[in-house]
Amino acid sequence: MTEHSLWRFSRALHRAINERRQEEIEGLLDDDVDWAIYGPIDMFPFFGARRGKAAVLEVLRLIADNIRVRRFDRETIMLGVDSAASMLRYSLTALDSHKPISLRIAHFAQFKADRLASIRVLVDTFDLVEQALR
Amino acid sequence: MTEHSLWRFSRALHRAINERRQEEIEGLLDDDVDWAIYGPIDMFPFFGARRGKAAVLEVLRLIADNIRVRRFDRETIMLGVDSAASMLRYSLTALDSHKPISLRIAHFAQFKADRLASIRVLVDTFDLVEQALR
Repeated sequence: MTEHSLWRFSRALHRAINERRQEEIEGLLDDDVDWAIYGPIDMFPFFGARRGKAAVLEVLRLIADNIRVRRFDRETIMLGVDSAASMLRYSLTALDSHKPISLRIAHFAQFKADRLASIRVLVDTFDLVEQALR
Repeated sequence: MTEHSLWRFSRALHRAINERRQEEIEGLLDDDVDWAIYGPIDMFPFFGARRGKAAVLEVLRLIADNIRVRRFDRETIMLGVDSAASMLRYSLTALDSHKPISLRIAHFAQFKADRLASIRVLVDTFDLVEQALR
């Protein structure tokens, strides 16, 4: 049994954010990848929709400029042949303020030939807003 | 091929909210159902965690007291044998103010013998907060 595309993508994603290394993730993005993070776009420049590999690599640099992932726990997961959905809790650190941010996200991903073709992420942003206002 | 539990549950849920009729949904909830809507609990009394059929029927009455569903569009869906996850856009009406509320939700559901055993819902609440503040 081969490894599901999600696991390889997840490792490469966290490496791109925490270590600012994009070699791996670059090979795991479809050229025409359809990407969206639904959340308060005014709060972080990396929320919103992006299209294509170059735009997604750019947004990953923005994410790496703003946060580090301290830990994440996958609460629920569904795997299809070329798809995956999960709900996770993230513990992040905001790089400018050094403040901890904890949030919950849900994502739906589609892969094509082991590359990410589409992802939709929903962020439990109220939690995030509350913490930012403290 | 029999119908997936999700569709029957979805119809019963919307009937419970829009018509305040709980006969159908009552038969589709596991006695020990594990239920959570993640969102700003201060805004709506129906956010948060509930356990057991009686608590969920009560929270459905609260939802019906507060909103009506005008329309919903399922953007993404994953179905397993006894599980389902989807992302949807909802157009709601707040019953007190008659104001439209539009929000995006993600849900992960587990069924056991065609009854809902567990559901986790994440609401794109910032959108909702923004609209409430207008």
